[in-house]
Amino acid sequence: MNHTYVIGVDMGGTHTAFGAVDARGRIACRGQILTGDYDTGEDYINALGDAINQLIKDNELTDKVRGIGMGAPNGNMNDGTIAKAANIPWAKTVVVPVTKMLTKRTGLPCKLTNDANAAAVGEMTYGAAKGMKDFIVITLGTGLGSGIVANGQLIVGHDGFAGELGHAIMIRRNGRLCGCGRTGCLETYASATGVARTAREMLEENPHKQSLLRAIVYRPLTSKDVYEAAKQGDELAIEIFNFTGEILGEAFADFITFSSPQAIILFGGLAHSGDFLLKPLLQSLDKHILSVYKDKTQILISQLNDAEAPILGASALAWE
Amino acid sequence: MNHTYVIGVDMGGTHTAFGAVDARGRIACRGQILTGDYDTGEDYINALGDAINQLIKDNELTDKVRGIGMGAPNGNMNDGTIAKAANIPWAKTVVVPVTKMLTKRTGLPCKLTNDANAAAVGEMTYGAAKGMKDFIVITLGTGLGSGIVANGQLIVGHDGFAGELGHAIMIRRNGRLCGCGRTGCLETYASATGVARTAREMLEENPHKQSLLRAIVYRPLTSKDVYEAAKQGDELAIEIFNFTGEILGEAFADFITFSSPQAIILFGGLAHSGDFLLKPLLQSLDKHILSVYKDKTQILISQLNDAEAPILGASALAWE
Repeated sequence: MNHTYVIGVDMGGTHTAFGAVDARGRIACRGQILTGDYDTGEDYINALGDAINQLIKDNELTDKVRGIGMGAPNGNMNDGTIAKAANIPWAKTVVVPVTKMLTKRTGLPCKLTNDANAAAVGEMTYGAAKGMKDFIVITLGTGLGSGIVANGQLIVGHDGFAGELGHAIMIRRNGRLCGCGRTGCLETYASATGVARTAREMLEENPHKQSLLRAIVYRPLTSKDVYEAAKQGDELAIEIFNFTGEILGEAFADFITFSSPQAIILFGGLAHSGDFLLKPLLQSLDKHILSVYKDKTQILISQLNDAEAPILGASALAWE
Repeated sequence: MNHTYVIGVDMGGTHTAFGAVDARGRIACRGQILTGDYDTGEDYINALGDAINQLIKDNELTDKVRGIGMGAPNGNMNDGTIAKAANIPWAKTVVVPVTKMLTKRTGLPCKLTNDANAAAVGEMTYGAAKGMKDFIVITLGTGLGSGIVANGQLIVGHDGFAGELGHAIMIRRNGRLCGCGRTGCLETYASATGVARTAREMLEENPHKQSLLRAIVYRPLTSKDVYEAAKQGDELAIEIFNFTGEILGEAFADFITFSSPQAIILFGGLAHSGDFLLKPLLQSLDKHILSVYKDKTQILISQLNDAEAPILGASALAWE
């Protein structure tokens, strides 16, 4: 047997995408199922397992697959379960032993973690963190996720839930109300949702300031609108990015006191905002960082393809 | 050869204490030299090495010692050096290759790290963290130090300087000025110095409030004074601890989002303030923690003897 492939599974709220990945990080073939179409975790895992078995068979990969790596909301690496995942109908209130069930259905060893941790392992295996032993991946999506690697290993904590930096409340005590019920969480500022929120606030607070963003009235503002406006030189949009970068720089200064990473790697839509975000972020980091860490930690943008990265990242778990 | 002892070296600004420690954490014999009495790092290390050699000889431990572990301000585990240690005359401006020189003088392998990291390894080997793979030690002394263990390993970062949580600026943005030149660092609030500072502030801000602390005019107030006053039921002193505990609880809520430790262990003089500190700390932690972590992380007080712990901690490095 020549185990030259791994299966990566990216479970999202709507779709579950999966693919067979080779050692160079190429996705040889892929498939998907709907995540929410099942009544129980067992039904879902059986459908997923069958689809993976079929993919392997159709692509003549039988006996060539080393294992399955899976990234999922609330995925717990320590015990291989998904529990209390608010957006997953079959895992809202119960603990689903995902890896155990999937191994039973496919005969393959299976590892599970959350999306941001999978992204970190993906960067280490195929991406910007190749060869690094200490780094942090920050995913800037709807929320802010984080995957922390120290001494070459994911930090998952005693319960498997380490690395919720989006919910560090450090950034503005008594600040914005977060979905978690507390105030001042980092992701209420630094995420696609946070940027849109800043846009709404700034538009309201500066009623006389012209902005292209004022034209968007027929649907909710998005961070992408802010980026498009910034590209056209819109001052308010640029200010929104300055504010977001300032916040991220302050937060990163604190993250660095914790694990002194060689790099912090930004991933996700907002990470592609280029210098609009990166320039104020670096200025703020430089201003707030403790002198012993100055100019040591690189801030990088993930070079992995956004569409492929979640499968790649999850698959990388299976090489370990 | 039967390596049943390790040498622990606790280098402070004034004294360097060392001892031979057995596997059960008993200090069989000890010695000390002055830290600042030497012009160069080489002179200091030679004197230290000779004193260690003598201790080994006098106590008939030749061939029984496995190695030397050393805790020192700015001690860097990655490269075994001490650099830019403001309080050490011979290491103020230069990089001293401590482990290399000490091994040369003693013939023993040598590991070095900073004091808080040594404390963490000590807790893991002999103390409250025995058997734990994920925990944080917070040393509450003149400043606030931290030693972070994840996956059973110290987090030292890519440059050896990880774990400076005393200089996380999260706690009160634009807060108290710190010795590091920035504002709002945790240790300006939560340390012996921070508590004394809070005392001075509160006394000033509440000129009409009676307090035993007002009687101390002939010398600077200390955190010990505050503790003694609290024990006698002094309201202001109790308020000072409430404030300090509140701050620590908020900070710990954020630390937990990072590494989700099984325990946070408090070490150092201030840690012995009992419920005066612990009760408000736990209340604040409970109030500020993200729900997924609720009631999971134990807050413990180190049970190691304050006078022995630094040597024990340092020595534990040499077992690894």
